[in-house]
Amino acid sequence: METMGKLRRTDMCGNLRIEDEGREVTLMGWVQKRRNLGSLVFADLRDTSGLAQIVFDEEVSKEAFEKAEKLRSEYVIAVRGTVKERQSKNAEMATGDVEIFAEELKILSEAETPPIYIKDNDDVAENMRLKYRYLDLRKPSMQEKLKKRHQATKVVRNFLDSNGFIDVETPMLTKPTPEGARDYLVPSRVNDGKFYALPQSPQILKQLLMVGGMDRYYQITKCFRDEDLRANRQPEFTQIDIEMSFVDMEDILDINEKLVQKIFSEVKGVEIELPIPRMSYSEVMERFGTDKPDLRFGFELNDLSEIVAKSEFKAFSGAVADGGCVKAINIKGHGESFSRKGVSKLEDLAKTFGAKGLAWIKISDEGINSPIAKFLSDEELDGIVKAMDGSEGDLILIVADKSSVVSTVLGNLRVDIAEKLEIIDKSKYNMLWVVDFPLFEYDEEENRYMAKHHPFTHPVDEDIELLETEPEKVRAKAYDLVINGDEIGGGSIRISNQGLQEKMFGALGFTMEAAWEKFGFLLEAFKYGVPPHGGIAYGLDRLSMVLADTDNMRDVIAFPKTQSATCLLTNAPTEVDVNQLEELSIEISKK
Amino acid sequence: METMGKLRRTDMCGNLRIEDEGREVTLMGWVQKRRNLGSLVFADLRDTSGLAQIVFDEEVSKEAFEKAEKLRSEYVIAVRGTVKERQSKNAEMATGDVEIFAEELKILSEAETPPIYIKDNDDVAENMRLKYRYLDLRKPSMQEKLKKRHQATKVVRNFLDSNGFIDVETPMLTKPTPEGARDYLVPSRVNDGKFYALPQSPQILKQLLMVGGMDRYYQITKCFRDEDLRANRQPEFTQIDIEMSFVDMEDILDINEKLVQKIFSEVKGVEIELPIPRMSYSEVMERFGTDKPDLRFGFELNDLSEIVAKSEFKAFSGAVADGGCVKAINIKGHGESFSRKGVSKLEDLAKTFGAKGLAWIKISDEGINSPIAKFLSDEELDGIVKAMDGSEGDLILIVADKSSVVSTVLGNLRVDIAEKLEIIDKSKYNMLWVVDFPLFEYDEEENRYMAKHHPFTHPVDEDIELLETEPEKVRAKAYDLVINGDEIGGGSIRISNQGLQEKMFGALGFTMEAAWEKFGFLLEAFKYGVPPHGGIAYGLDRLSMVLADTDNMRDVIAFPKTQSATCLLTNAPTEVDVNQLEELSIEISKK
Repeated sequence: METMGKLRRTDMCGNLRIEDEGREVTLMGWVQKRRNLGSLVFADLRDTSGLAQIVFDEEVSKEAFEKAEKLRSEYVIAVRGTVKERQSKNAEMATGDVEIFAEELKILSEAETPPIYIKDNDDVAENMRLKYRYLDLRKPSMQEKLKKRHQATKVVRNFLDSNGFIDVETPMLTKPTPEGARDYLVPSRVNDGKFYALPQSPQILKQLLMVGGMDRYYQITKCFRDEDLRANRQPEFTQIDIEMSFVDMEDILDINEKLVQKIFSEVKGVEIELPIPRMSYSEVMERFGTDKPDLRFGFELNDLSEIVAKSEFKAFSGAVADGGCVKAINIKGHGESFSRKGVSKLEDLAKTFGAKGLAWIKISDEGINSPIAKFLSDEELDGIVKAMDGSEGDLILIVADKSSVVSTVLGNLRVDIAEKLEIIDKSKYNMLWVVDFPLFEYDEEENRYMAKHHPFTHPVDEDIELLETEPEKVRAKAYDLVINGDEIGGGSIRISNQGLQEKMFGALGFTMEAAWEKFGFLLEAFKYGVPPHGGIAYGLDRLSMVLADTDNMRDVIAFPKTQSATCLLTNAPTEVDVNQLEELSIEISKK
Repeated sequence: METMGKLRRTDMCGNLRIEDEGREVTLMGWVQKRRNLGSLVFADLRDTSGLAQIVFDEEVSKEAFEKAEKLRSEYVIAVRGTVKERQSKNAEMATGDVEIFAEELKILSEAETPPIYIKDNDDVAENMRLKYRYLDLRKPSMQEKLKKRHQATKVVRNFLDSNGFIDVETPMLTKPTPEGARDYLVPSRVNDGKFYALPQSPQILKQLLMVGGMDRYYQITKCFRDEDLRANRQPEFTQIDIEMSFVDMEDILDINEKLVQKIFSEVKGVEIELPIPRMSYSEVMERFGTDKPDLRFGFELNDLSEIVAKSEFKAFSGAVADGGCVKAINIKGHGESFSRKGVSKLEDLAKTFGAKGLAWIKISDEGINSPIAKFLSDEELDGIVKAMDGSEGDLILIVADKSSVVSTVLGNLRVDIAEKLEIIDKSKYNMLWVVDFPLFEYDEEENRYMAKHHPFTHPVDEDIELLETEPEKVRAKAYDLVINGDEIGGGSIRISNQGLQEKMFGALGFTMEAAWEKFGFLLEAFKYGVPPHGGIAYGLDRLSMVLADTDNMRDVIAFPKTQSATCLLTNAPTEVDVNQLEELSIEISKK
């Protein structure tokens, strides 16, 4: 193997243009491909900026030519040579007007045939991409995605810096949280039998920074939740975390809209119109069956409960009588896209979302086609078609069940169907603030109210009096930013008063003793002068997916984990030496 | 408690000047102090920008005046009023030319008497500062230090961004490292009996980013070492981590000098002259007894071994005969500062650094005063005085021992003495690259060679052939940046060749099987084309200490841990529920 010796890179491959003709340049990178053509060897050289064509001509340098004959894909080389205009230009290549005639070649590293190709849209299995991540990362598309992510954080930092925010680091080794998701624990060697937790978010500490007078804080930081993994969920994720003092919700939404506008403008060249529209939680749930609706298409939910409340068809009237509802969506104008088999597939899909069944009405030039028509009175059927604005070419999908099931099923169906029909304009970025969330949601399993966001969320002022009597009616000063049906950020005004925070813990079922034991340091802090404050946190991974136009979260993370929380590259997690465990005073449980 | 209502902060307290006279402003912050003066109440209002004096005049607003009478220190208030010129100006206050006559006052949060004062240089016990960190952080000096830290990262990011570096995040849940310091382990719930480790540094992963063609990477990230804590060492610390491809050592030092220059220029207003001087490891060890010398003062070490090698004084000649040495420093011109008792204290100090004794020669107008004079020949004594450039007013301190002990003792003594004599110019920032480190150091305990930096450090080319025969002679392509006697950063050119990396593991005592088991993913990556690469990592905490002019690392960390790795604010680490441990398939060992 050779060293670079005195050679110094003068240019990046992808930047060379016809204006560079005649210049002596030194390029370094990977051989993308090599072709021998008699007394010439051609090689495409790749670095992070792109490709350049190198010509090894025996007459220019016999030594370089002879070495070049041995080049293979992914060899790393340094080439010194002169830029010349190409005879046969390649319009598909940014540098296609020129080629570099090599005067000197150094082979810096040889390469075996790589187990995956270094080319975009290679449909290799993802586990191979993860195992050989360092090869996968060589693909221009992967580098581009990571650069987009970097650009986003750069815009965020510049914007926040220039608006007086201070980047403050909070600890990774912190206190286990008794409320919320499962913690990753870290045994302490020095403090036998005790554990740190990796933070689920810097929530309490950033609030204490506000109590500490820091005024405007931000941090782009790793957070951790040991939850069962699903697609696009990683055990560790990155949060853009923001908190401000002396503000109310309007102030926070205002500055954050400007931030989001800036990100899309600088990273995507897309101008977002402000203000970003707002909808209440109850409205989005009613109209879209989800608190993160994609508004780039219709298929809105309509409530048919009143129309069918007294129907002979018990599947409908029974659901209403049991306190549930009957709702429907109209796949307007796309009825013909669904054969009987197609509709039956939709029913299977609906069942995966929890539906017991899926009723449907298709309207064609032959009139109404529906297996449930015979169970409904003409009045009911007309009522449904009218309520759904049904006309020729439509497909109406109806679900009757508990409200939460109906919402989930239809909310998911509308998205899946829109995706399948390819009617979503992917060039659009639809932004929405969802506001007026309920403060609590009832947890059937735990048999108590849980905080919808977290226990530090401030109730809407006029609802505070309902905290102890009708908690389900209390709204929160909370807001989520939804982009194209993905929750990209969320936040709230926080409780900044000891008494109110205690009441909140009470509503969550804590005794005062338990509340003080677990959150005493926050309640104590509230004794000594607390500014009104609030903030927001964005999921950088999700935001990056939107900016990089990918549906795969692993594409915007350099070294992601699989759905079983393993790293295929390093094989983490691994077994460890028993001595290490002894030092930590822990042992692996026997089954 | 009141809410801000319609009030919106218009200004920060510390920014008001005489030019603002007549403006109506709304300020929000904490009451620093309140004084009643008949029909007037004065309050100093504090926010993150500074202080402003508020006047509550019964005649301006009776309501505000009456509320103001109830104000106490650390109440949080919002005040609307008019800026007026002060009658008795306060030159000590940035806003001392003006005061604000309050028309409206809202008390946003009351406060009990805080357990620590909110004032700089309050000599409260540090454990109180840590327990009530949110109060300690209100001190202007603390906010200033955290802002300096933020400024530093901002400069670093801007500089690296504009030089084509990409900020890439590497995982926190990673693979345990078999070489180096002790890992923090994280049990995996999904993968029974297996553990992640928190990263000691992103070393291998950033190298794989280079193999992945990322070209120029940086990251400001948390790292973890579960070592016994000393002063100014935290279980988690922050690293400015940089790696570059297609470079050699000169390229890296060059761009990093510019980075450091930029940091000091923008954060401190101090212009660092480039190039930063370099010294070899062997030279700094010889002259200063340490690899991180403070060059802002003299007191250099001199070797007296030859002069006393044949002395009758066995303490000297014996040390030399045993393969050790005799060295001395001259506390030039400060002999009079040390009484006999003072010198005896120095000897005690020397013993804490591992010396068996400390010989000394004081030169006064009465001639030489030394307890060892009688054991030395005139020739030897003259030789020592001459070698040490001794003259009236000097104090020569001599240590005879194993070389490593002599270096440690004299290296530490010279710093401690210079500190005590207050001869160090604290306004100076002395920068030094230490280069030509040995690649290995012998570990007596483990009975094998260990990597001086880490096992991925590239040997100096001409020393590679010594790897298997005389490893102790092999120098590394490694460099440390020392500022004022503190190691602020360090890095190296990395091995980028599978065969050489295997040889390196061999020299460290690994069998090839063990090397592949533990570092197989790196060795495997080296098969597929590796660019020459290298980098550096700075300790952001230490750098921030220098920039914030503090000797206490905890002053540049918002929520630091104690020397027993606990957080006095949150009480982390804590005991956890046995169910949590069960889920993780671990239990606490019985003693």
